[in-house]
Amino acid sequence: MNLASKKFIYLGPQGSYTEMALDKFIGSLDLTNTEILNKNSIIKVIESVNSSENFIGVVPLENSIEGIVRETLDNLVRSDLFIIAEEIIPVSHCLISKGNDINKIETVVSHPQALAQCQQYLNKELSPSLNLENASSTAIAVKSLLEFPANFAAIGTEKAAEIYGFNILDKAINDIPDNKTRFVMIDKKIHPPSGNDKTSIAFSTKNETGCLVNVLNIFKDKNISLCYIESRPSKKIFGEYIFFVNFEGHVKDRHVAEALELIKPMINFYRLLGSYPRV
Amino acid sequence: MNLASKKFIYLGPQGSYTEMALDKFIGSLDLTNTEILNKNSIIKVIESVNSSENFIGVVPLENSIEGIVRETLDNLVRSDLFIIAEEIIPVSHCLISKGNDINKIETVVSHPQALAQCQQYLNKELSPSLNLENASSTAIAVKSLLEFPANFAAIGTEKAAEIYGFNILDKAINDIPDNKTRFVMIDKKIHPPSGNDKTSIAFSTKNETGCLVNVLNIFKDKNISLCYIESRPSKKIFGEYIFFVNFEGHVKDRHVAEALELIKPMINFYRLLGSYPRV
Repeated sequence: MNLASKKFIYLGPQGSYTEMALDKFIGSLDLTNTEILNKNSIIKVIESVNSSENFIGVVPLENSIEGIVRETLDNLVRSDLFIIAEEIIPVSHCLISKGNDINKIETVVSHPQALAQCQQYLNKELSPSLNLENASSTAIAVKSLLEFPANFAAIGTEKAAEIYGFNILDKAINDIPDNKTRFVMIDKKIHPPSGNDKTSIAFSTKNETGCLVNVLNIFKDKNISLCYIESRPSKKIFGEYIFFVNFEGHVKDRHVAEALELIKPMINFYRLLGSYPRV
Repeated sequence: MNLASKKFIYLGPQGSYTEMALDKFIGSLDLTNTEILNKNSIIKVIESVNSSENFIGVVPLENSIEGIVRETLDNLVRSDLFIIAEEIIPVSHCLISKGNDINKIETVVSHPQALAQCQQYLNKELSPSLNLENASSTAIAVKSLLEFPANFAAIGTEKAAEIYGFNILDKAINDIPDNKTRFVMIDKKIHPPSGNDKTSIAFSTKNETGCLVNVLNIFKDKNISLCYIESRPSKKIFGEYIFFVNFEGHVKDRHVAEALELIKPMINFYRLLGSYPRV
């Protein structure tokens, strides 16, 4: 993959889990002096990549507890972009503060999902009269500590604490330790096969779910193993769905190309979302 | 359905869309003097029904734009409850205020999804310097106007405006007019067939999605039409899913009972979520 001339744009701000996914991706490519920007919403990242030749975007696609990230999937289906790579990042929340005494914390601020994921920890380790405040992301929560006194803490990444020079009062505080998020890199073109790829497509069937079985049987007949299936509302008629399916193989593989040809008469909407190396 | 001795508990507070679904359901049964309570979270409604013999709960299950309500599905799968009925309610947001001049509105408060669903309307009809404030539900947003001056408005139901005696400045302000939510009634027992039913099940397959096609083929062979399929993370291992499937028929129908018997060797987790009249 030649990405030397590319710029990157990720779901920010700095210190977000998405930035960790980008760091891992760039590290694997050994790129230097790459221009990196961030935007504060998924749709803005997707729109930036869509409207420029030179950007690769990085956005979260799926969390092991919450499931698919709907804002990413719905906007990706409606864009002209392709997934070119994925990275899985463990979600390991830190308790971060200007202060250094966990017993003095009176308010904890974070994204509502992060607060929910640490609820048992907060109940057990912090004041019974603790206040919880919502922020629109963990990285924004950590940044907001700049404006708050030392009895405020935020839940976020280790990297976010480092960026602002805050203290890490505790690490790995999420109640379910095995919490992971899958991030995807998006570009305007599909990249060539790596030899161990998976493909993501979105489609709707002519008479909805009844026909879905026929489509899935085509993949079965071609020995193509499905990794994932998800349905999203068409947003037009209640009860009409767009299916999102991941399977093993690259669109350039003959059996995959044959299967995709065979399903065409059964579907009335189709979008190839990318073929990319499996992680 | 004999529900005369039952109490009802819905996702509140008063004036919520869930209360409208309950009103529609009770209206169809011609019940009088029924005790009705509400709780302010989906999990509290499900827990209340789970821990008492006498409650029927009402919670949202699916929205035509946002998709499945994950909090309902995930908690229902892990409960001992069954869906016994469904109601579809159109989402028609009103702009509500203590004041009566739309041009004086400076702040609009509502659930983030409701604010997002009315974004084009707010951009076009209200002040360019409008402030948006989040609330945890539309009904809570309307109630919160009690504490705010007349330059605040909330987005919520017509009924919520009536309850607090506020003015409706405009109706049907959602950008996509065809917005509907499916609500379900939940009880501790399955109710008998009505003659035109659907069934909801949750299951995981032995080797995950590869095996899913075999399960769906059983339904196809029995001429059972699928209405819906959704995957949710198992929350244990990343890449392991629980499938949620709706299909035509009642578990007491012979072909449905036969299909459910045939899929048993293919699955390692199974939960019947209910058989109930189709809407």
